[in-house]
Amino acid sequence: MFNEKDQLAVDTIRALSIDQIEAANSGHPGLPMGAAPMAYTLWTRHLNFNPASHDFFDRDRFVLSAGHGSALLYALLHVSGGLEIEELKQFRQWDSKTPGHPEYRHTKGVEITTGPLGQGFAMSVGMAMAEKHLAATYNDTLVDHYTYALVSDGDLMEGISHEAASLAGHLKLNKLIALYDSNDISLDGELNKVFSEDIKGRFESYGWQHILVKDGNDLEAIDKAIVKAKESDLPTIIEVKTIIGYGSPNKQGTNGVHGSPLGADERKLVFEAYGLDADKKFYVDPSVYEIFQETMLKRANEKENNWNEAFKQFETDNKSLATQFKNDIAGELHTNYAEQFPTYEVNSSAATRATSGDMIQAIAKTVPSFFGGSADLASSNKSNVKGTGDFSAETPEGKNIWFGVREFAMGAALNGMAAHGGLKVYGATFFVFSDYLKPAVRLSALMGLPVTYVFTHDSIAVGEDGPTHEPIEQLAGLRAIPNLNVIRPADGNETRVAWKIALESKETPTALVLTRQNLDVIDINQDKLEEGVRRGGYVAYQSEKPEILIISTGSEVNLAIEAAKTLEQQGKGVQVVSMPNMKQFDAQDESYKTTVLPPSITKRIAIEMAATDSWYKYVGLGGKVIGIDTFGASAPGELVMEKYGFTAENVVNEILNMK
Amino acid sequence: MFNEKDQLAVDTIRALSIDQIEAANSGHPGLPMGAAPMAYTLWTRHLNFNPASHDFFDRDRFVLSAGHGSALLYALLHVSGGLEIEELKQFRQWDSKTPGHPEYRHTKGVEITTGPLGQGFAMSVGMAMAEKHLAATYNDTLVDHYTYALVSDGDLMEGISHEAASLAGHLKLNKLIALYDSNDISLDGELNKVFSEDIKGRFESYGWQHILVKDGNDLEAIDKAIVKAKESDLPTIIEVKTIIGYGSPNKQGTNGVHGSPLGADERKLVFEAYGLDADKKFYVDPSVYEIFQETMLKRANEKENNWNEAFKQFETDNKSLATQFKNDIAGELHTNYAEQFPTYEVNSSAATRATSGDMIQAIAKTVPSFFGGSADLASSNKSNVKGTGDFSAETPEGKNIWFGVREFAMGAALNGMAAHGGLKVYGATFFVFSDYLKPAVRLSALMGLPVTYVFTHDSIAVGEDGPTHEPIEQLAGLRAIPNLNVIRPADGNETRVAWKIALESKETPTALVLTRQNLDVIDINQDKLEEGVRRGGYVAYQSEKPEILIISTGSEVNLAIEAAKTLEQQGKGVQVVSMPNMKQFDAQDESYKTTVLPPSITKRIAIEMAATDSWYKYVGLGGKVIGIDTFGASAPGELVMEKYGFTAENVVNEILNMK
Repeated sequence: MFNEKDQLAVDTIRALSIDQIEAANSGHPGLPMGAAPMAYTLWTRHLNFNPASHDFFDRDRFVLSAGHGSALLYALLHVSGGLEIEELKQFRQWDSKTPGHPEYRHTKGVEITTGPLGQGFAMSVGMAMAEKHLAATYNDTLVDHYTYALVSDGDLMEGISHEAASLAGHLKLNKLIALYDSNDISLDGELNKVFSEDIKGRFESYGWQHILVKDGNDLEAIDKAIVKAKESDLPTIIEVKTIIGYGSPNKQGTNGVHGSPLGADERKLVFEAYGLDADKKFYVDPSVYEIFQETMLKRANEKENNWNEAFKQFETDNKSLATQFKNDIAGELHTNYAEQFPTYEVNSSAATRATSGDMIQAIAKTVPSFFGGSADLASSNKSNVKGTGDFSAETPEGKNIWFGVREFAMGAALNGMAAHGGLKVYGATFFVFSDYLKPAVRLSALMGLPVTYVFTHDSIAVGEDGPTHEPIEQLAGLRAIPNLNVIRPADGNETRVAWKIALESKETPTALVLTRQNLDVIDINQDKLEEGVRRGGYVAYQSEKPEILIISTGSEVNLAIEAAKTLEQQGKGVQVVSMPNMKQFDAQDESYKTTVLPPSITKRIAIEMAATDSWYKYVGLGGKVIGIDTFGASAPGELVMEKYGFTAENVVNEILNMK
Repeated sequence: MFNEKDQLAVDTIRALSIDQIEAANSGHPGLPMGAAPMAYTLWTRHLNFNPASHDFFDRDRFVLSAGHGSALLYALLHVSGGLEIEELKQFRQWDSKTPGHPEYRHTKGVEITTGPLGQGFAMSVGMAMAEKHLAATYNDTLVDHYTYALVSDGDLMEGISHEAASLAGHLKLNKLIALYDSNDISLDGELNKVFSEDIKGRFESYGWQHILVKDGNDLEAIDKAIVKAKESDLPTIIEVKTIIGYGSPNKQGTNGVHGSPLGADERKLVFEAYGLDADKKFYVDPSVYEIFQETMLKRANEKENNWNEAFKQFETDNKSLATQFKNDIAGELHTNYAEQFPTYEVNSSAATRATSGDMIQAIAKTVPSFFGGSADLASSNKSNVKGTGDFSAETPEGKNIWFGVREFAMGAALNGMAAHGGLKVYGATFFVFSDYLKPAVRLSALMGLPVTYVFTHDSIAVGEDGPTHEPIEQLAGLRAIPNLNVIRPADGNETRVAWKIALESKETPTALVLTRQNLDVIDINQDKLEEGVRRGGYVAYQSEKPEILIISTGSEVNLAIEAAKTLEQQGKGVQVVSMPNMKQFDAQDESYKTTVLPPSITKRIAIEMAATDSWYKYVGLGGKVIGIDTFGASAPGELVMEKYGFTAENVVNEILNMK
């Protein structure tokens, strides 16, 4: 039974949240004040998590999907020993561990970066998928935890919440439990002005259990609901009716308390309402720490000790599987993991989506943690592993994920899986639909999660499907994202290296941008190619005395080399650079860069079937970019390319016409 | 009652679809073969539409959300007189009127561009919103039509379909009717591998009526369902169970018929199954044309004649409102619409989100068709019109749309409204969340719809909310979209002109990129400023003998001018260019461009708090870009800007350090 001490602890968490926001004079007090009871009940009675051991693999995951309520999470981390009180005083200040929205890696105990609404919830779905798959792959004693998400009205309005919930229901992710802070208020006002869904009906239609807790301050009712949720064989949403800004006599239940500090006067009234001493800022009664120590931390320590025992037994029983499990958790690859990867001979040709498909088969053989799928385009993306089965409720050990036509939930789920750990994950769709999941790609990059995105059908060469399916601006858009490797390989061998970079990455996501159409293999030494791709760009073809520089990527490298050979016949020396990864190239030292792009060669041309803007940094004001700054067209791919000027003849003419 | 002639017509539509795809050897036959009966029933018995009068304002709208089934739409347009048979023979060929996915403006009778899944459905929600609002604003005799959307499993898996359905249910859009081609197959295989939603429960939870038609070939049942849908006071989804590729003995009911041609042999078997002569390609029995003539076209003509009569009466009764209605339909503004727009004096300062807010109030006074809202950030975006009420089920005449936290549905709905016509629409959110609706912005640009996007909180100056809320790559990404005006005004006066450009646009959408923080008004002649903004860039400050060129946008123009004045004191002449709209500047003639960016000035610096790549096209290989290629940080905005180097002092030093 809960007692007065629990109530004091709940109100202390509220007060700590308020004091952070008051100190910063910035933040969102409404959610912490309303949702503290559910968070308190979850953390003290259920959550298997100890901030001091924040990377224990089988901990329960807690995702504050409503990231604007970050002060609540920091308060909880403080009373459970994860954040010093001094950090709370630095809420939203430069270099503190308590930024405006929770940031993965930046703050220990924060499982994932949240704030962009809906994504936290969808990432929690990914975590639950990872748990289910790893439990089936390894051992359901060693991998046996819950994933809890605290979600808001805003989260549940976002389309991604629907995609993710539908996927979770379909996959029967019974160890996923969402606590819904249902407070009937959004930033702009009363929720009923924009939102009138029957949440119970909606989630049941997706295959979830729905439990209603009518009074968000009723700790017993919340506790019972979580117990019931844990027993279900379906994912559960616990709808907890709360009052936003609970305790604020003048602001509770209004949007005035959503995103603005209370102010000193109202803070005083709130503290009085809670029965707390308003003169004490950032004050925690020792009994509060004791409760967390005696409940949550004790429970978590016990679990960890048991786990360590169980792992020893697992090592005794199955040494090699235990070693593999440890490697997977650490994200380590076998030293010889790439030995049997395919190489492609000169005079052969293949689409890079196909060579990527070859790689996916090869990787699955040597990287046991490899796990991924497509948003209903596996047959086009060549993204399924053959012979390893599908991941489903009935066959969670299966390797191929069927995400459905849910690109955004796919991206977020991949982030959740990568943050969960133990897996090397990838997801595939058409390149033009990278737009649909762009916000998730951004979060991969911001969090430094090594997710691999397989984007096929990368240009107007798609042809008949027409402009809706032909990427133009996507390369420029993705390349501008910090910490994202965008790699557009020019042949099967570059594809191999691109995949190796993606697999070896620990803190950078990778977008592989791949063709539908066949490309000829570049005639070059494979060691040089490997180094060149890793450095982001290299000389793929060189005349004796180059006076013209052509820089290109992907499918246009073939074209550039063809044009170079024609120009050579006319007595012009050409250096052709394949630049599969601009960002990596830019990170090289000057001496390498000047070897690839000699300053002495001022006649410079870039060729890429995409928006042109970003190429001027290599060709300069006097250079030429042969690209596309209009939309594509529907016709057979070869013809579209010809009409848009991507023929060797036209490229040669364009170059010859340069001043 | 339906009879054999109807069946022949249905099968003819199937055959025409098949023949298009066979001729192109590319396309998606499965949907047309399964969905022809529902489309036929709708078009012949209900749809008020005549392709010969495709721009009649009060026509019913038909949206093929499942755009990959384009051959079905082209077949329907042919038998109803909208497309020549020769065009069908050129399916998916260069310059034909029958591209791979239906394209708005390109093909008369195509209401909207579809293909990117989910968006067609969401655009149909926007059309129904436009209809409801205009009927309430003008006259519910002159604006009184239905919007029909044909949607697929793929549409309904996309998150945007949930957002849009939730919004439509909330708004009680009773004249929106979705026909759901429920065929249990997706591109990759059986739908039950990825999708197990209870569609009835889901849509009822959003406030829709759900009607099931068990046999998709039962024309009577489909007809009855549509009749019932039209009588409802809720939006309706009619779930029609169909067999994908119906009639194909070897492929029907499988994903083999989803996205690949049948092939000649299977075509023959299908034609036999339909009782058609397989030797005849692109054949239409005269009775088929007759049916369409006698049902659909007759009905549509009658409606149009009645409408013309009613409009005459309306003109008699209310001349000025009738004139306004005509102007709105034509997208025309009053000649003096901008006379009272605000101007801002030197030595004042304001955030551009606030000056945009001023403009929104001013526009609402002189542009009666102005209609828009925010995705739950109206108070931050300053996007609500004061005193004109909210658009809701009960008050459809209200001007402010509450989209909820549904950014993507907002973007698509705006496209639907703009394509519907009669309105100048806008939607607002934080700039960083432009990512969430980017696929809709792309479609605005591809379709040439003059939608205005109001994106506020445009840089790291957002401050405390931290990196999840601080745009970095968004400017580069949006600028790379063809036919999108991205305008980042530097003060209130530039904001005024930016809004004017947006309102006057007829075929180009506009993204307004606005600050949260205050900016000083630039000291410049207002005529010069207006011309400069319209040309995309202009000289905002100039020393007598400039030797240094600084190019900047938005909030950084203040900084550039401040730096210029400091440099001047050190004897360096500087020319500062404000470049609010790169794309428009690039479209100017060479002489204007060289005035603004004199080739003689080779010391060039660009300043923008965003990704740097795209600036090198102005500063060249020897230039410098002071930008941001990492993520932002959480701290007070002023401090974040300082830490990232955006102070006059640092800018001056950076410039002095240039070689």
